[in-house]
Amino acid sequence: MEFKIDHSILKKAITEVSHAVSSKTAIPILTGIKIEAKLDRLIVTGSNSDFIIERIVPVENNEVARLDIIETGSVVLSAKYLTEIIKKLPKDIYFKADENQTVIIQSGEIVTKMSGLNQAEYPSLPDNNANTIVTITSNDLIDMLKQTVFAASNHETNPVLTGVNFSFQQGLLTCIATNSHRLSLKRKKVNTNVNESFIVPSSSVSELIKLFGTYTTDIVIIATNTTIVCKSDTLSFYSRLIEGNYPNISGLISQQPNTIVTMNTKQLLEGIDRATVFASEWRNNNIKFEIDENQKLVISSRHSEMGQIKEKQYMKDISGEEELSVTINGSFMIEALKAIKTNEVQLCFNGSMRPILIHPIGDDTHVQLISPVRTY
Amino acid sequence: MEFKIDHSILKKAITEVSHAVSSKTAIPILTGIKIEAKLDRLIVTGSNSDFIIERIVPVENNEVARLDIIETGSVVLSAKYLTEIIKKLPKDIYFKADENQTVIIQSGEIVTKMSGLNQAEYPSLPDNNANTIVTITSNDLIDMLKQTVFAASNHETNPVLTGVNFSFQQGLLTCIATNSHRLSLKRKKVNTNVNESFIVPSSSVSELIKLFGTYTTDIVIIATNTTIVCKSDTLSFYSRLIEGNYPNISGLISQQPNTIVTMNTKQLLEGIDRATVFASEWRNNNIKFEIDENQKLVISSRHSEMGQIKEKQYMKDISGEEELSVTINGSFMIEALKAIKTNEVQLCFNGSMRPILIHPIGDDTHVQLISPVRTY
Repeated sequence: MEFKIDHSILKKAITEVSHAVSSKTAIPILTGIKIEAKLDRLIVTGSNSDFIIERIVPVENNEVARLDIIETGSVVLSAKYLTEIIKKLPKDIYFKADENQTVIIQSGEIVTKMSGLNQAEYPSLPDNNANTIVTITSNDLIDMLKQTVFAASNHETNPVLTGVNFSFQQGLLTCIATNSHRLSLKRKKVNTNVNESFIVPSSSVSELIKLFGTYTTDIVIIATNTTIVCKSDTLSFYSRLIEGNYPNISGLISQQPNTIVTMNTKQLLEGIDRATVFASEWRNNNIKFEIDENQKLVISSRHSEMGQIKEKQYMKDISGEEELSVTINGSFMIEALKAIKTNEVQLCFNGSMRPILIHPIGDDTHVQLISPVRTY
Repeated sequence: MEFKIDHSILKKAITEVSHAVSSKTAIPILTGIKIEAKLDRLIVTGSNSDFIIERIVPVENNEVARLDIIETGSVVLSAKYLTEIIKKLPKDIYFKADENQTVIIQSGEIVTKMSGLNQAEYPSLPDNNANTIVTITSNDLIDMLKQTVFAASNHETNPVLTGVNFSFQQGLLTCIATNSHRLSLKRKKVNTNVNESFIVPSSSVSELIKLFGTYTTDIVIIATNTTIVCKSDTLSFYSRLIEGNYPNISGLISQQPNTIVTMNTKQLLEGIDRATVFASEWRNNNIKFEIDENQKLVISSRHSEMGQIKEKQYMKDISGEEELSVTINGSFMIEALKAIKTNEVQLCFNGSMRPILIHPIGDDTHVQLISPVRTY
């Protein structure tokens, strides 16, 4: 195996796949990055037990050669040392592995020798003969995932809730995440007839956001019973799926509210952010909503020793009952409002014991829900 | 106590003094920030057991009132809660403390109540009737400290080495720091006849760099036997001094070297940075300097399992013996070279067991020293 490559291209590829590699893994071979030279491309791969990132660097003949494959082959090298040394090399790189998996990486008068790991142990990719479900732009997919993934659960007690549910139905993709105290749902029209549903671990979703967040590209989504693949021309992301049935939440988000108020999103977010300063004493960052006699929304919190805060905010609109007292987890509310892109939001209250629904005004594809905290 | 203030001014003052406040202190009152309203100024103070930061906000009558003292007085408030809430308040602030030390902080329709801490327990400032030693610009002082403080020791076994030695002698300020394996010295002409020497804890020095690093101002240095004060118009920094005698290092930096080589500073730094990738296995990040038959400087390191690196660098000049093999701590060398501002450096070698001296070419006020690592 032997090739020459522009050092910035190799650096980018290795940095991207290194996100899949953890130094803490119990499986030694997964501390490595696999580099494979084919006749027409270089394939760089990193993996962990949840997901695999594969980066393709094509040989492009029509421009100044930035990759020149001299001999095909493959090798697995320590991700930690490879990433660090490639980052610090200044010039074009000459890369050669001999039959003993001893690798020479040379850049000008800098010569590095590294020992390859046993590549026979490196896991193979999941079977790729699967259903192509849809093609979607990276911007659309990343937006949907950013607006939902934060609401997923961190607790393994109910594994299905630790993922984001992807549901394709009648040309509509719905992403949902919930930890059973709050929920976020986002819908989007997509160009597919496939009806299918699966749960992607939220750790994979977060990585997907990072990986494709800097690209503007089309992403093809492919799935089997156990795996999802998100693919662009040069980047493939494989993730395991979470087994199990996702809860049906349609009943939760179709309530008849007692009170509906319209607020400025940014101002509301800032108010709740202030209130959480004194709410940190409680496990749930308790903050309280009330409506006062002047038709203002009162946001308050209280720390038993340190102090308290109370602020009044102008409501753009209110309909229904004007008696209101609901305590919720301020951190959940902050994350919910940060995911909302419209200038105004509608808060739908249904008594102090029922969830608040949050609707971005002008966007009926997105809804969020937060359950109140019991304060007795 | 009662005043009105522009929120950005109060935010800046509180943020600056909060660097002196640790939530981990064993003395509860030191978790607080003291705010004192005098007729003509507000004084904001934060302290820990090593240093005190005092910020003065003057009432300036000649411009739009940004501070308006209504009633004098003082209060001590939890630094954590005060800092967070002031950061998040959007507008001008109204601040009032009653005789029970209950504080109201109001900004528009946002009202915060906080309970003051017992201010009788707050430590008083060290005696200020001390020797004024010198006035120096913040840029000059900060530069000297940045170029030396990193070389101080982290180990309390020899307390004097955990500080930076300030020595005023015949109109010259010399700052020295050493951990007995490496040393950095920087000299500067200053306008004083005082001959005095004291040791400032490196934690205080680091904070001093942060605090005055963003200002261009004159700093007055004042000292007693136990305290140093660095003062600008609006900012005072008090630090305890370390007791004891600083070692005499003049013999160390006046050796007759066997070999002197001249290198490009940036290129040498990059080469050593690369070599330390494979040096991390050893406690001392061992990297090796040699001179090869083509009069190139060879920088190398080796990891027993992962690999090795060797690079050759052009030397701009060499004099003396061309036989050379010295192993040093790469991290020390990186920190030393980062503190050097000239394009070229002279490395003075004196055999494999004697320290390397590093001289910035064109700057005879700065010298560094690194002892070799024994590799047998």
